[in-house]
Amino acid sequence: MTTPTKDDGLPRREANYVPLSPLSFLERAAKVYPNKTAVVHGDWRITYAELYARCKRFASALTKAGVGLGDTVAIMAPNVPALLEAHYGVPMAGAILNTINTRLDGPAIGFGLKHSQAKVLIADRDYFKPMREALQGLESPPLVIDIVDTATGKDGHGASMAVGTLSYEDFLAQGDADFEWKLPEDEWQSIALNYTSGTTGDPKGVMYHHRGAYLNAMGNALAFGLTADTAYLWTLPMFHCNGWTYTWAVTLVGGTHVCLRTVDPAQIFQLIGSERITHMCAAPIVLNMLLHSPALPKERYDHRVEVATGGAAPPSAVIEAMERIGFKITHLYGLTETYGPATLCAWQHDWDDLDLTARAGKMARQGVAMPTQQEIAVLDIDTGARAPADGRTVGEIAIRGNTVMKGYLNNPTATEEAFKGGWFRSGDLAVMHPDGYIEIKDRLKDIIISGGENISTLEVEEVLYRHPKVMDAAVVAKPDEKWGETPCAFVTLRADAGEVSADEIIKWCRASLAGFKCPKNVVFGELPKTATGKVQKNILREQAALI
Amino acid sequence: MTTPTKDDGLPRREANYVPLSPLSFLERAAKVYPNKTAVVHGDWRITYAELYARCKRFASALTKAGVGLGDTVAIMAPNVPALLEAHYGVPMAGAILNTINTRLDGPAIGFGLKHSQAKVLIADRDYFKPMREALQGLESPPLVIDIVDTATGKDGHGASMAVGTLSYEDFLAQGDADFEWKLPEDEWQSIALNYTSGTTGDPKGVMYHHRGAYLNAMGNALAFGLTADTAYLWTLPMFHCNGWTYTWAVTLVGGTHVCLRTVDPAQIFQLIGSERITHMCAAPIVLNMLLHSPALPKERYDHRVEVATGGAAPPSAVIEAMERIGFKITHLYGLTETYGPATLCAWQHDWDDLDLTARAGKMARQGVAMPTQQEIAVLDIDTGARAPADGRTVGEIAIRGNTVMKGYLNNPTATEEAFKGGWFRSGDLAVMHPDGYIEIKDRLKDIIISGGENISTLEVEEVLYRHPKVMDAAVVAKPDEKWGETPCAFVTLRADAGEVSADEIIKWCRASLAGFKCPKNVVFGELPKTATGKVQKNILREQAALI
Repeated sequence: MTTPTKDDGLPRREANYVPLSPLSFLERAAKVYPNKTAVVHGDWRITYAELYARCKRFASALTKAGVGLGDTVAIMAPNVPALLEAHYGVPMAGAILNTINTRLDGPAIGFGLKHSQAKVLIADRDYFKPMREALQGLESPPLVIDIVDTATGKDGHGASMAVGTLSYEDFLAQGDADFEWKLPEDEWQSIALNYTSGTTGDPKGVMYHHRGAYLNAMGNALAFGLTADTAYLWTLPMFHCNGWTYTWAVTLVGGTHVCLRTVDPAQIFQLIGSERITHMCAAPIVLNMLLHSPALPKERYDHRVEVATGGAAPPSAVIEAMERIGFKITHLYGLTETYGPATLCAWQHDWDDLDLTARAGKMARQGVAMPTQQEIAVLDIDTGARAPADGRTVGEIAIRGNTVMKGYLNNPTATEEAFKGGWFRSGDLAVMHPDGYIEIKDRLKDIIISGGENISTLEVEEVLYRHPKVMDAAVVAKPDEKWGETPCAFVTLRADAGEVSADEIIKWCRASLAGFKCPKNVVFGELPKTATGKVQKNILREQAALI
Repeated sequence: MTTPTKDDGLPRREANYVPLSPLSFLERAAKVYPNKTAVVHGDWRITYAELYARCKRFASALTKAGVGLGDTVAIMAPNVPALLEAHYGVPMAGAILNTINTRLDGPAIGFGLKHSQAKVLIADRDYFKPMREALQGLESPPLVIDIVDTATGKDGHGASMAVGTLSYEDFLAQGDADFEWKLPEDEWQSIALNYTSGTTGDPKGVMYHHRGAYLNAMGNALAFGLTADTAYLWTLPMFHCNGWTYTWAVTLVGGTHVCLRTVDPAQIFQLIGSERITHMCAAPIVLNMLLHSPALPKERYDHRVEVATGGAAPPSAVIEAMERIGFKITHLYGLTETYGPATLCAWQHDWDDLDLTARAGKMARQGVAMPTQQEIAVLDIDTGARAPADGRTVGEIAIRGNTVMKGYLNNPTATEEAFKGGWFRSGDLAVMHPDGYIEIKDRLKDIIISGGENISTLEVEEVLYRHPKVMDAAVVAKPDEKWGETPCAFVTLRADAGEVSADEIIKWCRASLAGFKCPKNVVFGELPKTATGKVQKNILREQAALI
């Protein structure tokens, strides 16, 4: 893989070696752009000098509260300034930031707080109910600090709903704006902890280090053309892989963070105009919501908005409608374990003249490695060898590079399993096209093998979703004596669907799919989901086995 | 400075740690943009797939020739493809690239070849004379390879002028395009060696590592907005700090390198139009030459050209004329020891509405740290403490960060001297303005102290240069019993100047400068210069002392 090193008697020194850390971005932005707007939240605006001072206060107050090297500080909040500030204040105190998914329930929050031994918990009052539940079960509860979001006038809970002993602003006031924070001695030091919510088992704590956060932020800034003129709208939750590291990337270029408490289409369209938003990230479902909002602008914005989307491929209708109002969409793929984006569907000039359908087909692919990620491969599931780049052979997406997690906190078994064979194994199945672009086919554990043929459940579900009476659908394997497995569909109908038979659904599938890919069984009803909205296919598989 | 690290049992692994190296940029560009034009040289064009294959051949041929880890490969060439390819082919063989300044004479080239123990020397036939001279004095001469530049039809020397035993293309043909190169095990491994040509003493060999090359390239790509649409014109010599690391930065984004054998204004303007050049770097003297060329376009280009300039502040006349044809100028500062650019004069929005003179004043400053450089400071020369940011207090520019050299090859004394006090000491004197922007005043060893007052020789020289009959000027200290030192001017007059008296020159200075800053003596004649065109002020100081 690598060659040994020759010693030339010129070792690292203080003058020529500094640990890579995104904390350096804020220090520089405060020096270069002290008077520039760093954060916008409703009518509340602060400059980079002010943001830096607030983050130093934050770090100082944490230190005074006994937080030290390697301690965890947890925070549960929508995209408000406190959550952004935590991305600097917490690691400036030498601590690890754990951002909590705001959709989690009390027990799931409690699991994380206990597992990470969080010393401090900062929470927006919106979540006082699950928060109180989470704290009840803890033997040594953390110091709790409340975020009282007065800036947008949307905190209507009042002091009676407080969970903590003091407010975030009061806590900051305890800190020193001249606090002398320090970079970590080693860039491998942990900076953030993100719990993944799998469909089975306990959540796993994904650990990021300063080096990876620095590099992924830089890679995103480069890939999406962030500049000092960037105004970034926080549609993507910051708790999600630290906002795909844009929490740091926007500061790197001295751009402006525009906070957003709730994903409200009218407010989003208004902010894109008034704050001249240049960049935003959002799942296709959010883009879809924007497009179906009555607030959708009739005319094109007079500036271009770069939109990075991931989690699912952007459908051609979304691409077309978005382009009409001046948005340019780029498709990304990644996992919590890869600091968010690991690949992007880099644009090729020979796509410029393709028609919409052909373009959407190109853009639906997850693409190629980010500039700071080292390598994306599709590996044969059995042998671990590289699958041919033929656009047909399905294998597991494997990733290696500096923006792959350190591992799972206190979970050596899961860590070793994830790093099997010198790669991070994503658990996602894909093909690699002859141009080197990957395209996801399914989750490894979801794929159905019927008569020796692979069936992508995503492919079948896509057909089901297109049925006008289907609202929700999931396909899983059902054991079968003859074929090994056959596809079994679980379908939720629209409220106004009336009577629909299993036969009708199967026939619908036959019109678009090869016979062996069509569901042999169809079950109607609600789909079991996790707190974060993922369908629990493991439960469906158990049900299918009993049919 | 830094805090210790807490071990969480999650060490580096093959999957999540890869040494930072700009070699990864080429590997990625060849994967993502295999069919895109990577290099243009006259009518000769190659894609990224071809560039990568050629560089692998290069590395393979070097390996077959016995070049290994830490060996030096020297190259002396104008900005032709072979020199660009050497930036990948040489380190892919584990070796260190030494690019030779094409203005050096035989003995200076010989010194470098001997000092670096170069195993291979690749040289353009244009330099056959100094090359033969340099090789004559060597006990164990390197393998010599000739670059025969047939692409632009400008190699008129013929085989009789060969210095080497084979041509570069024949050498490549010996290599294997499937060569399995390896990244260095340690990103601290050396990648390039650049000799500085001081005005006194032997040249010093500045050593760069893979980490610094990767980061400086990334910082430049970010700061100058390089993208996959970038077409970069090679006006800046690649031998100069590896072309300020743009040799690697342009490849990082998958842009196009447009080679340029000679800095010919007509060809430059033609290429800017035909290749849609988006970025170039050039010293103000080159910009000035462009502006005074009859080839200067009458009309604005229909696209913007970003021009990075350094070495001296861009004069307002240059800024104005450049803006008129669609160029946007950014001022940089750096040294060989900082991989080229260490600072940039980052634009501030409140400069937008300034008039030309005020804007030129802002832009004349060397500015703030590059995104990947850690810190620029102005230090009190005696105490080493930070000078106040008052725009008046002169101190030495000190730099620390990941894009500061490893040190000087086999020169521990110079290395320790350069890294005194935990900083790289630049030897340049500057003030820091209240906005944190630095502005250079003089070289440390050149400044004159007269009656306890500092006199910037740059300031006096600027006034002399404005005199219509002065072509060249240098000011040095002359020992003085009463004042300690006084300024002594050495002046070269224009050919058509006629008679000019010392008094006339002194009076000219009085009109613009405080009395104590004006030269007390004026000497007319040629100025002694080094092979690279630097005025040898040490010789002038000796002459001044004898007056």
